[in-house]
Amino acid sequence: MPEHRTATARQSFTLPDRFAMRRGEIEIPTLAYETVGRLNQGRDNAVLVFTGLSPSAHIASSVADPSSGWWEDMVGPDKPIDTNRYHVICMNSLGSCFGSTGPASIDPATNRTYRLTFPVLSLEDIAAAGAVLLDQLGIGRLAAVVGASMGGMTALAFAMLHPERTAALLTISSAARSLPFSIALRSLQREMIRRDPEWKNGDYQIPGPGPATGMRLARKLGMITYRSAEEWETRFGRERATDESPANSPFGIDFEIESYLEAHARKFIGTFDANCYLYLSRAMDLFDAADHGGSLKQALERMRLDRAMVIGVETDFLFPIHQQEELAQGLKTYVKDVRFARLDSMQGHDSFLVDMDRFRPAIASFF
Amino acid sequence: MPEHRTATARQSFTLPDRFAMRRGEIEIPTLAYETVGRLNQGRDNAVLVFTGLSPSAHIASSVADPSSGWWEDMVGPDKPIDTNRYHVICMNSLGSCFGSTGPASIDPATNRTYRLTFPVLSLEDIAAAGAVLLDQLGIGRLAAVVGASMGGMTALAFAMLHPERTAALLTISSAARSLPFSIALRSLQREMIRRDPEWKNGDYQIPGPGPATGMRLARKLGMITYRSAEEWETRFGRERATDESPANSPFGIDFEIESYLEAHARKFIGTFDANCYLYLSRAMDLFDAADHGGSLKQALERMRLDRAMVIGVETDFLFPIHQQEELAQGLKTYVKDVRFARLDSMQGHDSFLVDMDRFRPAIASFF
Repeated sequence: MPEHRTATARQSFTLPDRFAMRRGEIEIPTLAYETVGRLNQGRDNAVLVFTGLSPSAHIASSVADPSSGWWEDMVGPDKPIDTNRYHVICMNSLGSCFGSTGPASIDPATNRTYRLTFPVLSLEDIAAAGAVLLDQLGIGRLAAVVGASMGGMTALAFAMLHPERTAALLTISSAARSLPFSIALRSLQREMIRRDPEWKNGDYQIPGPGPATGMRLARKLGMITYRSAEEWETRFGRERATDESPANSPFGIDFEIESYLEAHARKFIGTFDANCYLYLSRAMDLFDAADHGGSLKQALERMRLDRAMVIGVETDFLFPIHQQEELAQGLKTYVKDVRFARLDSMQGHDSFLVDMDRFRPAIASFF
Repeated sequence: MPEHRTATARQSFTLPDRFAMRRGEIEIPTLAYETVGRLNQGRDNAVLVFTGLSPSAHIASSVADPSSGWWEDMVGPDKPIDTNRYHVICMNSLGSCFGSTGPASIDPATNRTYRLTFPVLSLEDIAAAGAVLLDQLGIGRLAAVVGASMGGMTALAFAMLHPERTAALLTISSAARSLPFSIALRSLQREMIRRDPEWKNGDYQIPGPGPATGMRLARKLGMITYRSAEEWETRFGRERATDESPANSPFGIDFEIESYLEAHARKFIGTFDANCYLYLSRAMDLFDAADHGGSLKQALERMRLDRAMVIGVETDFLFPIHQQEELAQGLKTYVKDVRFARLDSMQGHDSFLVDMDRFRPAIASFF
């Protein structure tokens, strides 16, 4: 998420103490968050949204920050997550670089940037940070915890770690664990960054371009896995690129699809810290809900949900629909009201950000 | 394909003249090939096999070279392509680096390695080189032209360019044109190589390691796209790697799937010239059968086939089954005997190299 806004609705809160992570601990981390909509008197209308790998806490526009948020179409007055009714909280993930503490932050113990001294991050750590934030905000039980992609896994972790605080769970284009295919893709993205000589084993200059080549390649692979072959066939076919300057080799940009990926990579570079990317990416690989109890069944049994919804997309090959069906089925054993929506969006994993015609009614039906 | 054999069955033939390519011409190229099985007196039992991107001409073991070939299970006495009956010819593709002329060869006109001065390569050029080879061998009409993956596209190009020489066509895990999804993946693989500082705009030292990092990354992405998520879920699940030395960063090898990709990448490095890889990869993107006539329909109308077979695999997402169905349907308009086999192999695009239980009977049925 580019951070070029002048106004900001970002609030932040620094823990007074050490924060225990699953594989280490850090000193007095800061958590950045935004809220939209009012907390009611009963303090029971809060919805906590965990983000995917790259967004900031700026989920939607507000008076304090009128710029569009990353889920602008979904969150706001009279929108599917209706801020006339709900108090929506979105936190920048622990380990990220948009206000919350992560590998690009200064370690108060050493006064140096954490970089690779940051403990190995897990999605459970992000979920635990969310609970600490709720304590700070004086919110006990959430009306719902919500997340898409990595955020869906984090929401699931939250519901397992804090069953008493979670009345409802909505996961979107997510899964109960990472499978080898998506681990392979993310592992390769990380290797692209780590093998860029400018990565310097994590010691690139901050601020600065850092391993820009590795980040560019990783972003392109990301874009390839976030969308679908069907969408690109429809959008681009074999159209030739016309707006590109002549390539400096026989292997430059010939096709529209190559031009599209290039434009997306250029936008991404310089907006996200490389080490943060590595940590968050690895956290997704490590996630397996079955770690909480020995099996997925036992893990789901821990929850105390009134209701749950799982939304998946048929063209998503990063979080394939069969994984989401499995999660919905598993939830049905322990939760009375479980809905499963299988959307035939064409835009693959990213559909929840773009296919509003299908996602709006699905999400509205839950709220 | 590693080239560590001591014996060789490789033959080669150098054209006496210039060879016109679609986008340039080269002087007296050499074509390396192997043959298995005898040419009969009528000279009408020849089967020409075009390879995928990386194999050499060593398709199967023979007296002259008893080492296993890249399609050992499929070609030989009493095997599906039975060399008791057929004279099988396999050519190292023009543009490759296992004996045939390509970007790693010396340009006779300058006495320097071609590198990026090699003309942009098309699969039609490889097909045309195949026809020149047949002239040299005194073979007019082929019993069949066969190819898998890139080789299937080349076989299709051959059948369109030389209808009078092609009695039968077998394409496997291939397509009539490259779609944006596969173009995007290959474009990214090329960018990984081109952005490796050791590529030096194609001027790395030969022999030498060249852009080994780029080649390693490209190979890993290749492996990810050549197999299937289903196969890896079954084979690896979330198994942790045990045989790896401790990683030098928090992002090293944790999972079996990462260890598997690493082993494959190590085997590949140093066996294939980087510039040749770039040229062959680009040639696949550029291929569109519809270029021959204005539409696929018109292109297929040019052929004079007695029969054709299209074999596809359901888990192949690089050459998706719907593309192969489309090709089979198109052929039915102009060819009396067209078979389409949809195999439910688990190994994705690479199934034709590994799932012999399904491929043996399918290919035997054609021969």
